[in-house]
Amino acid sequence: MKMYLMTPGPTPVAPETQLAMAQPIIHHRSPQFMEIMGEVREGLKYLFQTEQEVLMFTATGTGAMEGAVANTLSAGDTALVVDGGKFGERWTELCNVYGVKVNRLAVEWGRAVDPKAVAKILDAHPEIKAVLVQANETSTGVQHPVKELAAVTKTRPGTILIVDAISALGGYELPMDEWGIDVLVAGSQKAMMLPPGLAFAALSGKAWEFVKKSTLPKYYFDFTKQLKSQGKNQTPYTSPVSLVLGLQEVLAKIKKYGLEKVYAHNRRLSAATKAAMAAMGLALYSKDYPSQVLTAVEAPAGVDGQKVVSKLREKGIWIAGGQAQAKGKIFRIAHMGFIDTVDLLGTLGGLETVLNGLGYKVEAGAGLRAAQEILTKEAGA
Amino acid sequence: MKMYLMTPGPTPVAPETQLAMAQPIIHHRSPQFMEIMGEVREGLKYLFQTEQEVLMFTATGTGAMEGAVANTLSAGDTALVVDGGKFGERWTELCNVYGVKVNRLAVEWGRAVDPKAVAKILDAHPEIKAVLVQANETSTGVQHPVKELAAVTKTRPGTILIVDAISALGGYELPMDEWGIDVLVAGSQKAMMLPPGLAFAALSGKAWEFVKKSTLPKYYFDFTKQLKSQGKNQTPYTSPVSLVLGLQEVLAKIKKYGLEKVYAHNRRLSAATKAAMAAMGLALYSKDYPSQVLTAVEAPAGVDGQKVVSKLREKGIWIAGGQAQAKGKIFRIAHMGFIDTVDLLGTLGGLETVLNGLGYKVEAGAGLRAAQEILTKEAGA
Repeated sequence: MKMYLMTPGPTPVAPETQLAMAQPIIHHRSPQFMEIMGEVREGLKYLFQTEQEVLMFTATGTGAMEGAVANTLSAGDTALVVDGGKFGERWTELCNVYGVKVNRLAVEWGRAVDPKAVAKILDAHPEIKAVLVQANETSTGVQHPVKELAAVTKTRPGTILIVDAISALGGYELPMDEWGIDVLVAGSQKAMMLPPGLAFAALSGKAWEFVKKSTLPKYYFDFTKQLKSQGKNQTPYTSPVSLVLGLQEVLAKIKKYGLEKVYAHNRRLSAATKAAMAAMGLALYSKDYPSQVLTAVEAPAGVDGQKVVSKLREKGIWIAGGQAQAKGKIFRIAHMGFIDTVDLLGTLGGLETVLNGLGYKVEAGAGLRAAQEILTKEAGA
Repeated sequence: MKMYLMTPGPTPVAPETQLAMAQPIIHHRSPQFMEIMGEVREGLKYLFQTEQEVLMFTATGTGAMEGAVANTLSAGDTALVVDGGKFGERWTELCNVYGVKVNRLAVEWGRAVDPKAVAKILDAHPEIKAVLVQANETSTGVQHPVKELAAVTKTRPGTILIVDAISALGGYELPMDEWGIDVLVAGSQKAMMLPPGLAFAALSGKAWEFVKKSTLPKYYFDFTKQLKSQGKNQTPYTSPVSLVLGLQEVLAKIKKYGLEKVYAHNRRLSAATKAAMAAMGLALYSKDYPSQVLTAVEAPAGVDGQKVVSKLREKGIWIAGGQAQAKGKIFRIAHMGFIDTVDLLGTLGGLETVLNGLGYKVEAGAGLRAAQEILTKEAGA
């Protein structure tokens, strides 16, 4: 059976990327590798839309999230955590581990944070050193308004904005320098179209000043050491050679294609998916700013969201269910990275069949037609 | 030009492993992946020769070294660091970062630690909670006597033995349970024949008791959380799917071949290399317990060790030079993992030519003949 991976990470890897990674191992201290690192560093700056160095770690995204906390804050500092889903909770756990006090701004699952509420809390609590947020909360399919949040923190010299963009970066606009994001964290296995294994973090000049004052322990994820080493086209420890070869291939492709086109492609698939859900009478779980890289959908009354997922798997189509409090209530379809209209239409067709099988009546082709109308209107990437 | 990677990490990856890793990405929470994890967990126990769970992290070995310190010790604790090379220094740096006091046992580069000296220090300093050592000090080509060190710590309930076996595990005998090693750390890119990207740690029952008392901050490298997740054939964060597929392939091969044969293969290549060096009038840099996975050789008088390395590179043969205080004075030839007699003989031939070119006269074939005598005597793996 063919397999279609429509989950919000890991996402499919293109055959040409697989081949790049299957090249013979070269030594990480060789001129050849250093040349590749130089190219990759430039490509990452383009992807992050920054003049700053993009730090690269052998880890999954969570490692870079930990590094973001451990390198910019100190025990006893206070952080404002925007917690509107499973990954918001991760920021709180990380702060707890490091003795960083958490001012938790709970956001209802499926909703985005209100930047005005953040501004109000920062006014009342000038001791807050950092605002921690997800760009795209993968568990709820909501995009928090990062641009507006950055506008709030930009004017406050004592507060930085730390953004987990693990499932967002490369999926839609997050121009780090232009917006004034202070720490931008990403991972390789989502919109970046690579296997899991690389984590990234870029820091603004303001954030690097915070790094100088941070006293939390760090070694493997020591940002200062990493910056220094990358300046020599190296990494402090053994470089993840194969993944970097894949990264080189992916970044060259993104550069050639252009970020705008990549974003437009995802926007188009997202609009088509959302139109299909509406045509099938399904409601989005994301009430504010539905994500452009995945669509979180409420399971219709009487239908178990997990069943939708497992029945689709029998057809070789992998979507994601709900996590924690959303388990069974929702299902999530990703449309980021190496996913195209063929994958999407097939998934929508499968979904129609599965829903009918589970007792929720959908007219054959209703979702597909709505999707196709969008795909036809917005000429394709 | 063909490339021969004879460096002590990263090492060559077999084509069949590359193909395994080039398989399509599967979801890390799928039954398929969990089945693979189950197989991999068993394979790792065989490789580590332990009944304990072998924790697997997306990181390079240094990440697991950091985890070993952060999970077993607390700020203010004292550790005895055996420092006989570049990687011994890493233990000290790690302890410093976490506020663990270091009792440093300096060992001359090229020498192995004396277990009696360790016992004496532990007698005088019962407050020492852990002995930190390298199994194989890659920078000097020396194997520290881990079995004898474990005999020293085994009888002391308040002290554990933490062994960095990143360049050793899979290369020669290190039966964790039988010897009583408390924490055994490994990496994927050396004798395990995989690209860099996976780090491992296994803990004895005694070490797990230390984990309960440790108060140092940890999140990404939290051993307790990792243990719990692996018990369900999962990992706490996104699993490094591609590398795990490679690991599955490698572990199945090692199991089928048998550890004894793997070790015998390395022992044979090591003996042949060392015989060749002697025949060429070259002295080993490792004065005690020369490593079975790499051979560290003193550059002859008047010859720059780095020149030997760079001239061999021109022939497509990659060996390593010296690091830090040994830079220029030595060169290092690895014979671990996916390296065979053909690679080795070619390397030795190239070395003869290069040394002659640099003004050190070697009779043509002198080293090769000595190597071949060993290879013929010890029937090949």
